[in-house]
Amino acid sequence: MSTVISTPTISVDGYMAGPRQSREHGLGDGGERLHRWMFEAAEENRAEREAILGHGAYIMGRNMFGPIRGEWDDPDWRGWWGDEPPYHAPVFVLTHYPREPIEMAGGTTFHFVTDGIESALEQARAAAGERTVAVMGGASTIDQYLQAGLIDELRLTIAPTVLGDGARLFAGVTTLDLEPVSSRTTSLATHLTYRVRS
Amino acid sequence: MSTVISTPTISVDGYMAGPRQSREHGLGDGGERLHRWMFEAAEENRAEREAILGHGAYIMGRNMFGPIRGEWDDPDWRGWWGDEPPYHAPVFVLTHYPREPIEMAGGTTFHFVTDGIESALEQARAAAGERTVAVMGGASTIDQYLQAGLIDELRLTIAPTVLGDGARLFAGVTTLDLEPVSSRTTSLATHLTYRVRS
Repeated sequence: MSTVISTPTISVDGYMAGPRQSREHGLGDGGERLHRWMFEAAEENRAEREAILGHGAYIMGRNMFGPIRGEWDDPDWRGWWGDEPPYHAPVFVLTHYPREPIEMAGGTTFHFVTDGIESALEQARAAAGERTVAVMGGASTIDQYLQAGLIDELRLTIAPTVLGDGARLFAGVTTLDLEPVSSRTTSLATHLTYRVRS
Repeated sequence: MSTVISTPTISVDGYMAGPRQSREHGLGDGGERLHRWMFEAAEENRAEREAILGHGAYIMGRNMFGPIRGEWDDPDWRGWWGDEPPYHAPVFVLTHYPREPIEMAGGTTFHFVTDGIESALEQARAAAGERTVAVMGGASTIDQYLQAGLIDELRLTIAPTVLGDGARLFAGVTTLDLEPVSSRTTSLATHLTYRVRS
């Protein structure tokens, strides 16, 4: 069966996004500081950058898909990533509001799942086959999968900054037993790999 | 001038102690899980264990010194550590309530500082000479020193567990620019060293 991973980047104070996320600032105030390692030290962090993508299927919360809340009142919204998203695979978007799948260029199709995280994982596993399923975010989506014991491996990148407020990873997790596997320090991030004990 | 370090252990969700700290449970509910690495993998983590102590002077908040709040209504309370605390050096305890110094066996003297974190650091530096000053905790004490830019090196140990509630490190820090220096994974902890950029 496919392995389920998650590769979030958090600040040292635990935030995956800053406060006041909006259509203009999808990562919230200061949130771009979380991802300096990807852009300003791209070569040094190549292995971890590449491990974020290239999976068999993806799961994300609807807030990671876009800034729209409630009903899909903007039918033109097709995600943050332009016409050809970097996923090149099925992406299962958790939402309470049904919507037809959206087929994008390059092999990405957004599927909207309204019957919960386990259903989304079942569909993602079916789509991924032997390949990995990645739970992308945001924080509350990853928390729900961690809390349900459905993630096998957590690859946590810690950016050397504080955000002070925003969407905090682990805020919804009350039980978690991790096995530290490895760590690596680069000039702009520390990469930790954990196996999740079930 | 002496280097100022801090060596806290936190859960992956950022807590230095669990909820409901008391005289019987100084680390709060579940807080003992933070320190399994020190006891259950003592040899493997020898370097980091030894780096917690052996400094020229220490600073701690009064809640780390003991469970008493407000006036010192129990004059027999002399810290959590028995007659011979492991510090063997002056320990400056931040408090709003004056108290005479307490001299313990083995060279530890607890000094009670009522005029703020900078005064405590000045006194600790004077006592430490060329040796290191360690800001021990709790979370809010470390936060105050980080926020004031008074810590040079943060040695952060991350225990592979969640606590869900309690005293969260960095909760009082709004600005912090860290330089990742190194990381090391052991079976029960990940040790991260940061230089604090001022």
